[in-house]
Amino acid sequence: MCGIFGVIGPKEPSILEDVYLGLYALQHRGQESAGVAWFDEGGALRLQKGMGLVHAALSQEQLSKERGSCAIGHVRYSTAGESSIINAQPLHATYSKGQVAIAHNGNITNAEMLKRDLESRGAIFQSTTDTEVILHLMAHEQDLPPIDALIKALSKLRGAFSIVALIEGRLVAARDPWGFRPLVIGKRDGVHYVASESCALDIVKATHVRDVNPGEIVIIERGEITSLSIPVKPARRFRCSFEYVYLARPDSEIDGKSVYDVRLKLGQNLAGTCPSPDGEMVLGMPDSGTIGALGYAVASDLPFEMAIVRNRYVGRTFIQPTQRVRQLGVQIKLNPIDKLIRGRNIVVVDDSIVRGTTSQLAVRFLREAGARKIHLRIASPPVRFPCLYGIDTPRSADLAAAAMDTGDLRDFIGANTLCFLKVEDLINSIDLPAEELCTACFDGKYLEE
Amino acid sequence: MCGIFGVIGPKEPSILEDVYLGLYALQHRGQESAGVAWFDEGGALRLQKGMGLVHAALSQEQLSKERGSCAIGHVRYSTAGESSIINAQPLHATYSKGQVAIAHNGNITNAEMLKRDLESRGAIFQSTTDTEVILHLMAHEQDLPPIDALIKALSKLRGAFSIVALIEGRLVAARDPWGFRPLVIGKRDGVHYVASESCALDIVKATHVRDVNPGEIVIIERGEITSLSIPVKPARRFRCSFEYVYLARPDSEIDGKSVYDVRLKLGQNLAGTCPSPDGEMVLGMPDSGTIGALGYAVASDLPFEMAIVRNRYVGRTFIQPTQRVRQLGVQIKLNPIDKLIRGRNIVVVDDSIVRGTTSQLAVRFLREAGARKIHLRIASPPVRFPCLYGIDTPRSADLAAAAMDTGDLRDFIGANTLCFLKVEDLINSIDLPAEELCTACFDGKYLEE
Amino acid sequence: MCGIFGVIGPKEPSILEDVYLGLYALQHRGQESAGVAWFDEGGALRLQKGMGLVHAALSQEQLSKERGSCAIGHVRYSTAGESSIINAQPLHATYSKGQVAIAHNGNITNAEMLKRDLESRGAIFQSTTDTEVILHLMAHEQDLPPIDALIKALSKLRGAFSIVALIEGRLVAARDPWGFRPLVIGKRDGVHYVASESCALDIVKATHVRDVNPGEIVIIERGEITSLSIPVKPARRFRCSFEYVYLARPDSEIDGKSVYDVRLKLGQNLAGTCPSPDGEMVLGMPDSGTIGALGYAVASDLPFEMAIVRNRYVGRTFIQPTQRVRQLGVQIKLNPIDKLIRGRNIVVVDDSIVRGTTSQLAVRFLREAGARKIHLRIASPPVRFPCLYGIDTPRSADLAAAAMDTGDLRDFIGANTLCFLKVEDLINSIDLPAEELCTACFDGKYLEE
Amino acid sequence: MCGIFGVIGPKEPSILEDVYLGLYALQHRGQESAGVAWFDEGGALRLQKGMGLVHAALSQEQLSKERGSCAIGHVRYSTAGESSIINAQPLHATYSKGQVAIAHNGNITNAEMLKRDLESRGAIFQSTTDTEVILHLMAHEQDLPPIDALIKALSKLRGAFSIVALIEGRLVAARDPWGFRPLVIGKRDGVHYVASESCALDIVKATHVRDVNPGEIVIIERGEITSLSIPVKPARRFRCSFEYVYLARPDSEIDGKSVYDVRLKLGQNLAGTCPSPDGEMVLGMPDSGTIGALGYAVASDLPFEMAIVRNRYVGRTFIQPTQRVRQLGVQIKLNPIDKLIRGRNIVVVDDSIVRGTTSQLAVRFLREAGARKIHLRIASPPVRFPCLYGIDTPRSADLAAAAMDTGDLRDFIGANTLCFLKVEDLINSIDLPAEELCTACFDGKYLEE
Repeated sequence: MCGIFGVIGPKEPSILEDVYLGLYALQHRGQESAGVAWFDEGGALRLQKGMGLVHAALSQEQLSKERGSCAIGHVRYSTAGESSIINAQPLHATYSKGQVAIAHNGNITNAEMLKRDLESRGAIFQSTTDTEVILHLMAHEQDLPPIDALIKALSKLRGAFSIVALIEGRLVAARDPWGFRPLVIGKRDGVHYVASESCALDIVKATHVRDVNPGEIVIIERGEITSLSIPVKPARRFRCSFEYVYLARPDSEIDGKSVYDVRLKLGQNLAGTCPSPDGEMVLGMPDSGTIGALGYAVASDLPFEMAIVRNRYVGRTFIQPTQRVRQLGVQIKLNPIDKLIRGRNIVVVDDSIVRGTTSQLAVRFLREAGARKIHLRIASPPVRFPCLYGIDTPRSADLAAAAMDTGDLRDFIGANTLCFLKVEDLINSIDLPAEELCTACFDGKYLEE
Repeated sequence: MCGIFGVIGPKEPSILEDVYLGLYALQHRGQESAGVAWFDEGGALRLQKGMGLVHAALSQEQLSKERGSCAIGHVRYSTAGESSIINAQPLHATYSKGQVAIAHNGNITNAEMLKRDLESRGAIFQSTTDTEVILHLMAHEQDLPPIDALIKALSKLRGAFSIVALIEGRLVAARDPWGFRPLVIGKRDGVHYVASESCALDIVKATHVRDVNPGEIVIIERGEITSLSIPVKPARRFRCSFEYVYLARPDSEIDGKSVYDVRLKLGQNLAGTCPSPDGEMVLGMPDSGTIGALGYAVASDLPFEMAIVRNRYVGRTFIQPTQRVRQLGVQIKLNPIDKLIRGRNIVVVDDSIVRGTTSQLAVRFLREAGARKIHLRIASPPVRFPCLYGIDTPRSADLAAAAMDTGDLRDFIGANTLCFLKVEDLINSIDLPAEELCTACFDGKYLEE
Repeated sequence: MCGIFGVIGPKEPSILEDVYLGLYALQHRGQESAGVAWFDEGGALRLQKGMGLVHAALSQEQLSKERGSCAIGHVRYSTAGESSIINAQPLHATYSKGQVAIAHNGNITNAEMLKRDLESRGAIFQSTTDTEVILHLMAHEQDLPPIDALIKALSKLRGAFSIVALIEGRLVAARDPWGFRPLVIGKRDGVHYVASESCALDIVKATHVRDVNPGEIVIIERGEITSLSIPVKPARRFRCSFEYVYLARPDSEIDGKSVYDVRLKLGQNLAGTCPSPDGEMVLGMPDSGTIGALGYAVASDLPFEMAIVRNRYVGRTFIQPTQRVRQLGVQIKLNPIDKLIRGRNIVVVDDSIVRGTTSQLAVRFLREAGARKIHLRIASPPVRFPCLYGIDTPRSADLAAAAMDTGDLRDFIGANTLCFLKVEDLINSIDLPAEELCTACFDGKYLEE
Repeated sequence: MCGIFGVIGPKEPSILEDVYLGLYALQHRGQESAGVAWFDEGGALRLQKGMGLVHAALSQEQLSKERGSCAIGHVRYSTAGESSIINAQPLHATYSKGQVAIAHNGNITNAEMLKRDLESRGAIFQSTTDTEVILHLMAHEQDLPPIDALIKALSKLRGAFSIVALIEGRLVAARDPWGFRPLVIGKRDGVHYVASESCALDIVKATHVRDVNPGEIVIIERGEITSLSIPVKPARRFRCSFEYVYLARPDSEIDGKSVYDVRLKLGQNLAGTCPSPDGEMVLGMPDSGTIGALGYAVASDLPFEMAIVRNRYVGRTFIQPTQRVRQLGVQIKLNPIDKLIRGRNIVVVDDSIVRGTTSQLAVRFLREAGARKIHLRIASPPVRFPCLYGIDTPRSADLAAAAMDTGDLRDFIGANTLCFLKVEDLINSIDLPAEELCTACFDGKYLEE
């Protein structure tokens, strides 16, 4: 997944703190490591990186004192490459044309082939990230100015990439020609921002100017935005539908569509496809299923209840998976309100089923809380295919809906009924043309290379 | 506020980890410090305490390895006493009858008088907690066995106290005769638990057996519960109504009433008293106003929307209040979904108004998000009097509703309309007799001493 | 052991940092915990305490910013009481006459009796330190002003105590009537200091004014020193001889005698009593035996060599005692220079033998380095009796020289010869009258009570 | 400076802990960062790196649990490249022939030229270390097997380098053809070690087998040592004389010469060249001047005294350079014993003078301690030229002995007399032929390229 953020403006301390805050708003896109790169007052490229959540990996105090005129940041959710500080981004390099720093969100499908080719020309790789491939490709375009070298490099890539980069004191942002991963541009006074999601613009009180277009390269310098193109002509777009289903924050807007709106509609459409005649109330699995549940409840005219409570202090670093904690299971984080559920037929809405184990545990604790019938409703189609474009789905064999049909899956999970949204309703809810959307994880329609 | 937890059972490592988990579930009741006391295998009283959230203050890893047969824990939200490790609880002491450890939730109104009297008899105080007063009172009853000394000590106290204690290898729990603060008993196999709220029983998969009654002392030993009384006969009860309004978790049950249920009813009653004829949607202030908003929406037949998004990773330690952060304000934590709000008349439900500043900031960012009219609805009466019984309200002068009438307060906050719940509706929603409830912060009816 | 430090002067930030530095200079007297207490600008008593070495336990950065007019500090080496933050000093208390803080070095031999008596009068003990006994004794003198109450309290104590205290904005220091533990007074401009050893005066560039006399109480306020007496008339003094032998730093001066000088003389006298006719060079066990070795070498006209090298970065927190580390043993810290030692007859001087295990390991690694003969020379008499006055010696059964005669001990250690200094030479080297010195750990002559 | 360590042997946890201990013994060679690289049981290259001292940068606990069959480690003292985790070594890379890790001690004088050439061929640099240059040079030898590629790479380097590397499961060590930096081979049972100094073999109880020869490449695998040569024929050797003067630990042996022995002889020769007729005692500046002082004292028949005491707990992380600390100066670390010094003519021996400021501060505090005359004797010639081969000397302008003649320097420092060792006595003390030694920092005779 990963989240990226960039800023350029007058040399002031707050722009580095804005990167900290932007990454903080994008924390849901990656919790493994975080990093910031910037050009300091003396023109030197500086880095701060660390493992864990933003507040642990970076020093807000130190960043709030540093001055810089442009900066980029990254939160990492490991997809390619093992978990380690070596893979924390942004990556930076010195090469024949100077210093450059890049941060990347996505997954480049021809990375291995490009790597082998680069190695045969003498390249050494110090990380296992796709980002390092981009740096090498740039450096091998000796005859081109840096921006042109970057464009040349990007034109060789296949797959998903949204990037931010610092090149010659300029902030550069680019989105792959298929538009897999989102990328937005924002502005506040004389400062420009680029971010994975618009919620990261809101936290720094920037206005959402527009999305970076698929295949577009944006160069921001002295308050001016220049737009160039990656010279690859895709047959169609592949904007990620899973961003709307699960990944993005509900207060973000992606390619002109409000994520909140889409999730409400997913719930409403789900109510049409998967009614629950004897359901007495609708619950959402916190937090990802809540908005879908609200849509479902309204459309099916059933009461919406917040009967599963999430511990507000839950965070991945807090509870060690000791034997006792494993035994207690998901209830460490989620607690059903027995009084509300006992003896009732409940409809539970979740955003998706990937491995199926979370659903299984949730159904189990709802049973223990006394639910009579449990109707599990999923606000997306069955995930049957792995994502090749940067979302950390397991391989096919571990995808519950790939391994079992819906009946078997219902029994595995232990629900009384189980029903999924249809792909056409997903497309319809997002309200973008089908040929603009990637639904590969649901229907296996991958980018043809 | 503060939260307390106690456990007794067969000597096994997991009971200490259960205290950790119980405190984790009670984290909302205190974030300043946390501590655990237990008798180890050799019969020695052991302590672990620290500042900050449970995961920072205590070592889950170490506790999961320690063995003990009984233990108590505490999370502290400073009311009396300055913020410091010296005031972290449980407190422990050695006195003429042996070793004892106590943790306390509440505020003892005659503590200063008792302290002066104890000092005149040679007592020294090493903390500024009320808890230390209890230890001294016990120790001055030289002729009584420990439990009787505790009962004698408790009978001298006025005000709010729920306590857990370790005395002679037994777990002791007590609740003041007025019943200010909640205290519940739970059980799992041969292990007994005591906790401030039932949600802390759920996390360790214990069954909620019953509440400790006002004025009751419970002694748990070898799987047996003995019930004794504090020899004080109160004219009436003073169960805290603010626990239902704000303090407790919605998945807790206090004195037989579900907090979730009460909050839904508060919202429903609020809709009756404070309708919003031109309102187009109902929002709750996350997280405390959400359930009330849901009740309001249902009762007034307006759509319920989750248009204010709370950053899931917000926690008090993460963001330093730098100049930039103060300038950005509450939006670091809460983000309104502009697209939903722009140009609409919105009804915003919050649980209460104390200082009024949070409401003011929220109204401001909703205006910036483009709301046309903002109708602020408060699911409790105006807080006009300080709490003397353990809730950290400011003195009268800083209570917005004490300093201003509703019209001025509306203007101060910047809402188009402002309306509060009535006290009788509060009582009615909780569904306990008026003479069982403390509503002093709303109507100034304090315990007469 | 423990080290104490006190300062009083104009309200300035540096006096708190001076406590930090003073404790840093006294670090050799205690590594378990450290603490500072001071009255801040508002007149409130403040504390900072922590486990481990000074730099880990305290925040130099924070202390360098705090202002106060008087402060005391303590480094703890646990003798009485288990290892825990609860026993970290200074202790403080509020009692009928106000606030007081005390730090203590020594061991009070009638503490248990005093505790039992205090408990029978209703006292509760929250630590297991002797210091808390002093606070209770003060508080029980209700009719006396604080200083008089302290004098009354101290007059009830038997055994060793040097204390620093903050009482009513004054710095108070006292030394037991027998003079067991050292205590010195220093001055720099208008600032007065009290410290366990004079080396802690040097680090803050204070002049060593004089020692606190046995039985003296010193009250420092507004640049004036008042001297009072503890009304106990001892038959003789018991100044600790082991301070000179091992405990104090060589750059300290105690009761008018330079520790360095004494150690040189111990070595010289040792050469007279224990010659080594076939010895070819003299080595000191780092660091405590080095100066004695130098004295021995000069007196016996043998070359002094620094053939055992101590890793400069050794500190107790750095190396975990894993299986591998235990297997490698003392060589982690000390490394002999083989080339120098191989095939030679060496004289090794150490300051004392307590358990004998360190000597045994040292002899072993010197053998492995190829030494032909090893003559072990000890610059103090055999330690045959436990110290009751604050030095952490083991009980008799674990004292090597109590369990074995010198011949058996030589074989146990593996040296070719072993020879100890005589008690009269110890006294003679210190150059104080025998009736002024405690030599109880060598000859069992304890204070008669 | 920097220190390196390597180990290969049967797959067992202790070999990784041995790297930890080896680096710990080499801590004096670098305190900025530390790192370990190893091949784990699955054959994957693993890294652990961090800033600061070994115990802070690395986790002994974790390393003691990991299994590996070969490993290398590094402690860094920044010479080339800014201070940052990015420059912490070992560096590792994946290239066309697999994975490789390298750690490096020294300074490559043609690094910039090599870098520019590599960049022109498309290389990107992610650190500013010379080590990365070596990796790139290897990777550009596409047609050669890894070891041959390394040899080819090393043959292009000029200047100082001792390296350890992990290549194809083998431990490789190499020393530049001039022999600037030391490198030794050790053995314990079936385990082989390579280290910057022999003291690091002692800590793991390995036997010192021999030095790696100048220009030698050693490949260790399955208990066998293979020796190859770097095909560069140097006109002469340049073994660093400053290792003996200051850098190495006295318990190390370099190129067959004991550092302790050399330092004693430096002191003895110094006594001949620079007598002190009215001197009454000889002191060494702790710790680097102590052994020289002992040699001087013996040769001049003056008493040797340890009158400057070094705080045993001093370490670079402990004391923050606050205003107060700067004001107190070097006395935070070193304390003279006034009683010994007052009114006497003292001879102070130090190992060298670089910037001159430490000597100045030391003379000042010895004056304050009452010394009558101070004769400063330096056990090495004046440092007049910067080191180009890996020792962190300042540029010429900041070298006190380059800026001033001895008379002016004496006045600047404040000593009564100042006298340096002669270059021929330095060579003579080390006892290696002049054409085997680098004395460039003293006489400017650099390697001709």
